[in-house]
Parts: sequence; C-alpha cells; structure tokens
Amino acid sequence: MRQLRYSLFVLAGLLAGAPARAQTAPTETKALLGFEAASAAPEYQLEARFDAQLKADNLRQWMKRLSAHPHHVGSPYDKDNAEFMAGLFRSWGYETRIDVSYVLFPTPKLRVLELVAPTKYTAGLAEKPVAEDATSGQTAEQLPTYNCYSKDGDVTAELVFVNYGIPKDYEELERRGIDVKGKIVIAKYGGSWRGIKPKVAAEKGAIGCLIYSDPKDDGYGQGDVYPKGPFKPETGAQRGSVLDMPTYPGDPLTPGYGSTKTAKRLDYKTAPTLTQIPVLPISYGDALPLLTALAGPMAPADWRGALPIPYHLGPGPARVHLQLAFNWKTEPVYNVIATLKGSQFPDEWILRGNHHDAWVNGASDPLSGMVAELEEARALGELVKTGWRPKRTLMFCAWDGEEPGLLGSTEWAETNAKQLQEHAVAYLNTDNSDRGFLNVAGSHTLEKFFNQVGRDVPDPEKAGLSIADRRRAYDLVNGTPDVQKDARERPDLRIAALGAGSDYSPYLQHLGIPAMNVGFGGEGPGGEYHSIYDSFDDYTRFKDPTFAYGVALAQTMGRCELRLLDADVLPFEFQNLSNTVARYGTEVKQLADNLRTDTERQNKLLAEKRYEAVANPTEPLLPPKPHEAVPYLNFAPLDNALAKLEQSAQAYAQARKANAVLPASRQKELDQLLYQAEQQFLSAEGLPRRPWYRHQLYAPGFYTGYGVKTLPGIREAVEERKWAEADEQIKRTAAAIERFSAQVSRAATVAGPAPAQ
Amino acid sequence: MRQLRYSLFVLAGLLAGAPARAQTAPTETKALLGFEAASAAPEYQLEARFDAQLKADNLRQWMKRLSAHPHHVGSPYDKDNAEFMAGLFRSWGYETRIDVSYVLFPTPKLRVLELVAPTKYTAGLAEKPVAEDATSGQTAEQLPTYNCYSKDGDVTAELVFVNYGIPKDYEELERRGIDVKGKIVIAKYGGSWRGIKPKVAAEKGAIGCLIYSDPKDDGYGQGDVYPKGPFKPETGAQRGSVLDMPTYPGDPLTPGYGSTKTAKRLDYKTAPTLTQIPVLPISYGDALPLLTALAGPMAPADWRGALPIPYHLGPGPARVHLQLAFNWKTEPVYNVIATLKGSQFPDEWILRGNHHDAWVNGASDPLSGMVAELEEARALGELVKTGWRPKRTLMFCAWDGEEPGLLGSTEWAETNAKQLQEHAVAYLNTDNSDRGFLNVAGSHTLEKFFNQVGRDVPDPEKAGLSIADRRRAYDLVNGTPDVQKDARERPDLRIAALGAGSDYSPYLQHLGIPAMNVGFGGEGPGGEYHSIYDSFDDYTRFKDPTFAYGVALAQTMGRCELRLLDADVLPFEFQNLSNTVARYGTEVKQLADNLRTDTERQNKLLAEKRYEAVANPTEPLLPPKPHEAVPYLNFAPLDNALAKLEQSAQAYAQARKANAVLPASRQKELDQLLYQAEQQFLSAEGLPRRPWYRHQLYAPGFYTGYGVKTLPGIREAVEERKWAEADEQIKRTAAAIERFSAQVSRAATVAGPAPAQ
Repeated sequence: MRQLRYSLFVLAGLLAGAPARAQTAPTETKALLGFEAASAAPEYQLEARFDAQLKADNLRQWMKRLSAHPHHVGSPYDKDNAEFMAGLFRSWGYETRIDVSYVLFPTPKLRVLELVAPTKYTAGLAEKPVAEDATSGQTAEQLPTYNCYSKDGDVTAELVFVNYGIPKDYEELERRGIDVKGKIVIAKYGGSWRGIKPKVAAEKGAIGCLIYSDPKDDGYGQGDVYPKGPFKPETGAQRGSVLDMPTYPGDPLTPGYGSTKTAKRLDYKTAPTLTQIPVLPISYGDALPLLTALAGPMAPADWRGALPIPYHLGPGPARVHLQLAFNWKTEPVYNVIATLKGSQFPDEWILRGNHHDAWVNGASDPLSGMVAELEEARALGELVKTGWRPKRTLMFCAWDGEEPGLLGSTEWAETNAKQLQEHAVAYLNTDNSDRGFLNVAGSHTLEKFFNQVGRDVPDPEKAGLSIADRRRAYDLVNGTPDVQKDARERPDLRIAALGAGSDYSPYLQHLGIPAMNVGFGGEGPGGEYHSIYDSFDDYTRFKDPTFAYGVALAQTMGRCELRLLDADVLPFEFQNLSNTVARYGTEVKQLADNLRTDTERQNKLLAEKRYEAVANPTEPLLPPKPHEAVPYLNFAPLDNALAKLEQSAQAYAQARKANAVLPASRQKELDQLLYQAEQQFLSAEGLPRRPWYRHQLYAPGFYTGYGVKTLPGIREAVEERKWAEADEQIKRTAAAIERFSAQVSRAATVAGPAPAQ
Repeated sequence: MRQLRYSLFVLAGLLAGAPARAQTAPTETKALLGFEAASAAPEYQLEARFDAQLKADNLRQWMKRLSAHPHHVGSPYDKDNAEFMAGLFRSWGYETRIDVSYVLFPTPKLRVLELVAPTKYTAGLAEKPVAEDATSGQTAEQLPTYNCYSKDGDVTAELVFVNYGIPKDYEELERRGIDVKGKIVIAKYGGSWRGIKPKVAAEKGAIGCLIYSDPKDDGYGQGDVYPKGPFKPETGAQRGSVLDMPTYPGDPLTPGYGSTKTAKRLDYKTAPTLTQIPVLPISYGDALPLLTALAGPMAPADWRGALPIPYHLGPGPARVHLQLAFNWKTEPVYNVIATLKGSQFPDEWILRGNHHDAWVNGASDPLSGMVAELEEARALGELVKTGWRPKRTLMFCAWDGEEPGLLGSTEWAETNAKQLQEHAVAYLNTDNSDRGFLNVAGSHTLEKFFNQVGRDVPDPEKAGLSIADRRRAYDLVNGTPDVQKDARERPDLRIAALGAGSDYSPYLQHLGIPAMNVGFGGEGPGGEYHSIYDSFDDYTRFKDPTFAYGVALAQTMGRCELRLLDADVLPFEFQNLSNTVARYGTEVKQLADNLRTDTERQNKLLAEKRYEAVANPTEPLLPPKPHEAVPYLNFAPLDNALAKLEQSAQAYAQARKANAVLPASRQKELDQLLYQAEQQFLSAEGLPRRPWYRHQLYAPGFYTGYGVKTLPGIREAVEERKWAEADEQIKRTAAAIERFSAQVSRAATVAGPAPAQ
C-alpha cells in the first residue's frame, strides 16, 4: 500500500501535465485515501452500484413537485415540502424527524418608493409574470420584493449613487466632496454580499438604502432577458436577506443558542443583526427614473452600468421617499433530519445537508441541490435493501429558513452544539447548482480526499473526462497565471476556502466541524436568482435541462458519503492543508508589505501636493486621506506555528504510509483525533467584534459578506490598519495552528506502526 | 559651463523627487542646451519679451473668425481662411506665399443606409443642429457625414457586429464560427484608427462596413451630451478619412511625388490607398435599430457598449442595404508658407506647422492649434520690429487638406523633398489642443531640449508649477508602475514616439527631419470631434474657455522656435535617444519571448484538447488556431548597433562638455551633421510593403493606424510571425542605427576641443 500510495501521487503529477484522458468506472483498483488495498476494490464496486441507482427523472419530478408553489418560511407549502420529504426519507428506510425552531421572520406590510423631485415617479415594486413561466403568475402566494431584516422606516431625502456601496466606494465619493449623511443611497447589486450595503451606508450616516440590479451585471448587458433568454427582465428584482450575518447568522433574537419555543429572546428593536436603516431592492426598471434624475459629478468610469444615461453621483436633485413597514412575526422553521445508523462506529456522524426553503419557487435555489440529496438518500436506501450497512452514521438534513439567514441550520447547530462537536465527522453541503464546472470549497483537511472523488466522477458533457479533469482544463485555459501554474504542476486541484452563503457556516465556523460545499456552474447563467423567475420552467430551459449535472452532483456527494462512512481510517490529510495555510501566511505578509509600500507612495504624493497639481479645477477631486505609516509586524509566531504544522502533517503522512491495521478501539481513537482536529482552530474568544465566528482560518469578511477571509483575524486587522489587533491576532492564530499541529502529532502517534515495527 | 551643465542634471534629478516647487520666469540663469553661458541670459530675456506679447483675446477672435463657416477642402471658406491668414502673416512682416497642390477629394453624392430585414429602418444620417450652437445650423455649407476615400458601392447583406474591427476581433469571431465573407460589418469607433476597420474587413471578405460611435466610448456613457454637456448626442457622427495612410498619406493619385497641376496621376479606381469596400460612419441613434435586430451569439463581455440592448454578433437576421456614391473631383489645397529669414545661417530652416482645414467648423480641430501658431508669428513679428533677427530661418506653415489624408503637408514635403532634406533643422507641429496636461511626442534627439522648454513654461492653472511639473505629477499619480518609476527617478520626462495623425508624418517618417508634436489635453473631453458640434460655442464652453492653455501652447512653441533659431549649437542630444532606443530593443526582444511562451502554452493546450474540454455545448467556442513555434531570432546585430549608439552619444556629450566656441564655418558643419543625423535612420527600401515609410525607428502601425510602432520593421514582423522578415529587419534597423551612430561620432569630432586642449 505504501508503494501504491506513493505512486498515486507521482501518477497524478504526471497526469496533470498529460493529455486529457479517459476517466470512467475504474477497472484497475486505484488507491483510495483511508482504505486499505483490500477494502478499496469492494468500495469501488459499491459506488458503481450506487451510480446505477441514480435516475435523472427522479430529480426532475421532485423539482417540479417541490417548486410548484412559493415555499418561503412561514408559507403553507414550506411546511408541506418538509413533510413530503420526511415521508420520502421514511419510505427509504431512514429514521426521520422534523425538528422545529421558532425564528423572527419579518414580511412586508408596506412598501413605498417615490421620486418626489425634480420629477415624480412611483416605483412599481412588482415583478411581471410571463406567460411562458407556469408559476410566475402565483402572485397571491409570492412574497413581495424586499430585503428581509430591513428595519421599518419612513424617510425622504436626496439620493446619492454609491456604486456597489462598499467601503472603497465611499472613499471615491469623499474625494468628490460627497457626503451621504442624511441622504438615501442607491447601490448596485454585486461587489459584495447585499447586507454589506445598508451596513456601510448606515455607518456613513445615510438614512435609507436602495439596491438595484444594473442591467450591465444582471440584465440585457449579459444577454437576452427572460423569457427570451435567461437574464433579468426590466421588472425583475432580487429579494434577499440583509441580516448582518458576518456578525452572526441565525435567528437575530437568540445569538449563539437555539431558538426553541421557550428560549429567551432579544427585543427585535435592539437585535444587533438587523439593519440600522430601511433598505429595499428594486428592479432596473424602477431604478432608471431615479438615476436619470441625479445630477452632480459623473460616477467614475467603472461604476457606470448599462442604463442608457450618464451615471451621475448626486446628491440630488433627485429626492426620494422610502417607506417600509414589516410584520415582525415569529415563524416555525422545519428541519428534516433523516438518519441511517452506522454499524461499527455509530457515534461518528457524517452530515449531508441542503436547504429546502426558497424566496419564491426556488427551482435552482435551493431545489437543484435538494433533489440531488434526495436521490442520494434514495439510492443509499436501495443499497441498504441489498444488505449494505455503513460503518458510520449518516444524517441527511433538509434545512428550512436558509434564505433569511441560515436560520434552520444555525439554530439546529446551536441547539445540538455539544453532540455535534463530539460526533460530527464532516458536514457536506450543496445548494443551487447547474451545468458546467465543478466548484468545491471546504476544509483543506479534505482537499486530497475530495480530489479522489472528483477523479472518479465522469463529466456528463465530456466523454472520457472526469469532473476534476474538466475543472483542471478550465483552470489551464481561463485561470490567472498562478492558477494555471497550479493546474499544470500540482497533483491536486486546490479547493477554495469557505466564507458564508449557505448552511455550512455554523458547522465549520462556529463549531469547527470539517465542512465542504460542492456544486456545478458556469454554463447556466441567468438573472432568476431570488426572483419569481427561479422556476421549474426556467431551470429546465436554461440551467440543467436533462438533470445530467444533477445526477453528477449526486454521484459526487454519494461518493463523499460512502467513503467517509466506510473508510478504514477517516480520509483526512494534512499536508495539503499545511501547504494552503502557508500560502495564506505568505498572503497576509504580502498584504502588509503592499499596504506599507502603497501608503508610503501615497503619503509622499500627498506631501508633495501632487494630487493638487493634477486636479482639474472644473471637476474637483480632493486628495485621498493620509494614513499613518504601516509598521513592520511580528509574524514570527505565525511562522513558527506554520513550521510545526508542516512537521506534524509530514509525521502523520509518514505514520499512515506504514498503513498499520489498528484494533477497533485504537481506530476509534484515531478517527476522533482526526475529525476533532478542526476544532483546534477555534479560539474561545472568537474573532474581534464577532465572537460567534471562532475559526481562525476561515470566516466571511466583515465588509464583504459571502466572500471568505482566510486567517481572518490577521487579515482584517491589517486591512483595517489596526496594528495592535494585528499583533494580537497573529499570536492567537498561531496558537490555534499550534493546537491543531499538536493534535495531528497525537494522531500520528496513534496511527503509526507499533514501535517494534 | 561644464560644471553648470552637470549640476543641472543633478539638480533636475533631485527636484524630480522633491515637493512641487515655484517655477516661473527665471531670475538666476538656468543652463540652456545649445547656448553658452553668455548667450543664455539674453535668450531668457528675449523669451520674456515674447511672452509679454501674447494675448488670449487674439486667439479667441481668430478662432471665432476662422470657424465662422465650414472650411473643408474645396469649400469657399477654406480658401478664404488661407488668404486671411496669409494677409495676417504679411502684415506681421513675413515673406508669405500660398502654395497650391491639386488633390483627389471625393464628397458624397448619394448615401443610403437601410435595415431591410427583419424590420425596416432608414438611417437618418444627419446631425441635428442645436439652438445653443450658432454654427451647427449651417446645414447647406456642411459636408454630410461620410468617410472620405470610401469607394462607391451598392451592397445588401446580413450584418455582423465586429467590435472595433481590428484583427484580434476577427479571431474571436472565428472561434464563434462566424465568417464575415459576403457580409456587411458594423464596427465601433475606437481601438484603432478608423481606416483600419474597412481595410481589415475587406481582407476578411466583408462587402461593406459601417462605423458607429458607441455611447459607452463617445456619448452618454462618458457624460452629459451636447449641448447640456460636451459629449456626443444621439445623431452625432464622426466624419473622417479612411485613406490607407499606413501605406502612404497624401494625394492617393501621386504616391511619393508632388501633386502639381501637371503631375502624372493614377486612375482613382486603381489607387492603392482607397478602400476596397464602401464604408460609412453613423450615429448611435442610427446604429441602435441595426444592432437591436441582430441575433446569434452574445458579443464577448468587453465588446458590449452602452446601448440598452444585448449586443449580439449576428450574422443577421438583420439585413442591411448600403449604397454610396461620391463626386470624384480634384480640388486645390492652399498651404500658407510665411518665412522669416535668418541672419547668420539662413540655410538652416525651422519649420512650424498646423493645418487650417476642418471637417466642418473645426474650432478645436484644427483651429485651437492654428490660432496659437498665429499668435506666435505675431509676437515674433513684434520682436523683429524691436530689432531682433533670428540667426536661422523660420517658416510658419498653415496646411490645407490635413483631414482627408495629410494632403497639403505631404504634397508640399514631396514637392520640396530635396531642399527640405538639405535645410530643414526640425519640424514643429501642433493640432487640436485644449486644457490640462502637456503631451509631447517626437524625435528623441530633441527630448532633452524639450524638457528645458517644458521646465520654463508656467502652467496656467497651477500657480508655481511649470507645464513639465504638472505632467510629472500626472505621471506620478496616474501612471503605470513603469511610468511612475520614471517620473520619480528620471530627470527628464519621456516624450512619446510619433505615429501618424497629423502633419509631422511626411517630414519625420518620409524625409527624416527631426519632428515634434505638442498639445495640452485631458481636461476638455467631449464628443465634438469631426462633427458639426466642433464649434466656437463648444470650444469656449467646454474646452479652453479663457484660452489660457492656448497662450501656454504659444509660449511653449515660441520657446522651441526661439531656441532652435538662436542657439549657438543646435540643441540636439543623443544620450536620451540612446536610452530610448535601447528600451525599444528590449521591448521587441520581450515581445518575441512572450509570443514564444504564449504560443507554447496555447499549442500545448491545443494538443491536450483542453479547449474542447472547456467548451460549453450550448454556446460553441472553437479552439484558437495553432501557430508554428516561435524561433529564437538573432538580435545580435541590433545589440551591437545599440552599443555603438551608446558610445557615440556619450562621445558627443563629452565633446560638448568642453563647450568649445567654434568658428562659424565649423559651426555650420556641426549644425548640419546634427540636424541631418535623423536622416541616417531612413532606409532606402522603406518598410516592407510600404516603401514610403522609411524611418526605421518610428512608423504608424500597419494595423493600428495612428498608433506608433517603434522599430516598426522588427516589431511588425514579430507581431505578424514573419520570421525571415524579422531577421532581415533586425539587420536593416541595426544598419540604420549604425549609420546614425557614425554621424553622431563625426559630430563629436567636429564639436570637440582642438586636439591640443
């Protein structure tokens, strides 16, 4: 086995540079991380039997059924879907329950948006049904377009266009002498998670926020609009949560604990994750009259969209009245939990989840992933009927309330935190998925594991290529030079780090459970996201008409489940992680160095009055603000920790090469060391100003939202020029890495051959 | 003087990094290239007296008078303007004549553009007069919107959108399976000189070409449209020549010789510089229905403009009928030549030119430069009245027929070629100019000379800063990293190389006369170019309302004239040139290396079928075409020549440090060696496939038009993968550089101190 394992790496390295090759069901036995040579062959046979069960038509029928009506939190069809799925799981032999949490879920009572000067316009705020889309006309059941967790408000003020509404956009506005204090801002969707826009606007003193979908990013600028093509039509608007999830997700009234029926709750008026100002999403049809009425300086060139107007910044003369009022109700969320108990290590849990709630009909988001999960469950149920039993326990989860703020998954994670940290081996997530290229993000302890999964799943569109081959081809053809180099030279594909945006967040970032998120994309773009047009009709015309990629997703996730369930030793691996974290270390050092150089350059230009020299007297542009010089930071604790990480990862790899067969009790001890290693990355204090986020490697960015920040304590301190905090976070992150390394060293000891060998 | 000269460099080096500093009329005597210490002080005094003469109101009145009516070639007001200016020059004491050439100048007889399927639309092809612009309504006198030197034609075909219509755009179309053979193409203005678009389209088999101004580049995407703001309104269209000037400029019927009344002429139907297909410029108002009617694949993201539609490529279903017929007439062009004879070296001529013809009223293009030239002439005339006489001869030129194809300047240069190569010291050009930043391009033998001019002219908007200071600030704030580095570290600002686009071209690139083109810009953007909106009203609202930069231009060019006229030794300098040409050498080597690496990468991806692996089955994208591997070229001849250039430049600098006062005859010999050095860069054969262009350092790009290609023989051979030609051109260019170096060495010998010293 030792030889075999080694030659796999070499082989993969050679193949990376070789012509694309046939890659289907294996006839020879390829090495499989965590499986002894003798176990690998039966595992492959089992996977082939699993694949044989998968039927695209099941995915199609379930998607049609589950998307037949709007099924947001609190709607009758949301509960109906949960019960329907619970029935399916039960029919396939799973122990199934529906766990209920009770969460704050506001819906609109009043929405008014008017241009009151210099001309008059009343926004329609309504998406137009289209004849070609069977469910788009279910107006009475649809939630109106709104941003969930906006506060109530009634404001009238001049309008300012703020591009994407992220911090650097306000720096540009300041240089043009524009202050948003007391104004209403209008921001484009994009450039960050939507919740960042009202958060930053409020920090800057704005009293209201509009978010619109510019047709350049999400409309005719991308292609033909619905129903002729898949892109956003004139009245389309993107619903979505603006909960301050980078502070904490889940029910805003029960931070850090489960929102059971009787839990103590905050008053919603003081809940810290609600917005500070009213915010409303609008269509580009409604945005056009508002933007047309702006005067003031032209927006910087890269701010301008595809509306047929000059994009001015304001403020005014456009004056806008925005009035919002919500029903601040508590609603039940229904998490479906279906369990298949393990035969050998029943206390080791593999969790597999996808959410089932949607903003409207949600064919793509979330049902495209949900129906794959259902088919995985059905196929495994069929294997059980033929006598197979997994060694470890599998739990299928169908979360409710993801859209408003990961409500179902977070409350369930918080409610069951202790048990999960004790038992959960990994959390495997999917969400919306369509055609094209494999996208994987997750814990880098699973990177090598996942590469073997990707290697073994054929791409539905490209005969002879695996989904990993196709992804590698994509990186070689379209990647940045760095990505190309990796794709050419590195045996394993890199998986991305997880930020936020779906239900893995509480498991990974709050509880330290190894997690992964998987999907396909790139060949099914469109503008349906969070609109009435995310429908079965849209999905089957433009996304994945044959559900071939839905089946590929089930094959992929099914393999992840089967291998984690049945591996002799849990297939964690630490050298890829070590390599990745070392890169993050290099990045944050480079970030500090670049910031130092840029600051020096800018301060010099300021001292020399070069900005004044360049400014056009008829279009004033103020100099940027000076910054204090960037100090040299003490990165030594991080470097020392990284060195230990490398050593421990190597020691574990070395120990595993011997591939000793362990007695069951020692095997259990090793498994637990392995899957609990990730918890060593948690710090008790959590990240600055957001203790709910405890993982020192991965977090959503405080000012980007979905976008991940790796080594977030250090990186954000540097970005925000908090030098004392940076020093402290370097130490805290280093300590976490050292704890992790120590655990890996213990695992190496347990895994290793007996001293005599 | 030696010490002084040296410390100037050091001083400039220090100042480059120092805070912006006061920079007005010199009180201490700064060193002046070409002037002995004793001559510099009176020169500065003379320049101060020159400055004192300049009056902004003269520029304003002349611009108003000269732009009062359309004055294109062949129009009554074109001749009237020439006579008016000749009268002015005479009144100021210049020996003045009007030299006439007779050139082919087609004007439209018939212009029809219709969308014939799937919907109907007849293009208006007319710019709308606006009430706020006094001359925009002179419809009867205006040339219609057209591209001059389009051939006649009557074609109907499907339409294809080709982005900017440059060669790489057709590679993208090919990858999408789109062939323009037998089609009519529609291209955006921009990305190249307009004449490249029909040239490339015809090479690809298209039968007609439309060129429109997309509002993203030239309309509301840039700002408010005329008359509210300066940008192109819906009906605005850009007239302009499509003569194949990169082959040769000037009258298409008399290539390489003067188009005198009796010259032998080609038949216009076989003239090689006319287009092969009919071509017409249109407004975005007329383009919208055509582009809206296209189907087929979406255009690549960076091709899309600011019209409110998805930009499809076609071909069709849009079908277009284009019919053009022209009056193929011969017209006189009137070059005004005003001479002030030199007292000491009358056979050494300084030429100063700007064109006077326009497409319509031409306030900015060309009158903004023309009125500065007039004021220079008037002010020098005043100096003459007070007793000053230049040492050398000055000739003011006001060219006709620049717009159709540098007709007046080229025919005059060809007619007087022998005398010019014998006598012309330098040709100093201006053309349209507005507010903002100094832009200089020219022979690098004059780079250091010009830096001293820029140092001594105060910026009109920034008290205490010279025009060079402000340009340096611009480079420091907005430049690429390379430009920033130069601006920080290099004492002299780099001047750009000259391509094509104004009347310097025949002097520099055909005759080898040192040339320079100067203007201000960056703070007066607009869409008036070659339209009826380029008017006095537009210029005085949006361009340079106070004519302060017009006066600065006169100060700048006046200093160039005075210093070249009166220098003790002509102020040529060769170390800056050597440094610049060495950079060009590095660039072409890098170009070949990059092309080799890119070709290897692409061929590897092709061999591995990675493009097929990545392609989306529903949006086919073919692999790019393979290329043969890029060989290693023998750059040794170039490297050897560059080494000699560096040595000779250093030898001349060394010789000049001694600053020997030469007897007049030896001085004359030295002058001639200096100003004729540039002619050594000419090759007798000229560039491949365009022998009219003989300069081996500078030429307009064969496939870019205005844009310069430096070391054009080598660079274009590499770009076009003609390896044998590249080898030959390396040798030919090296030989030219060696001839030049030999001449500089001779100059060093003549300039140097007597052996005894």
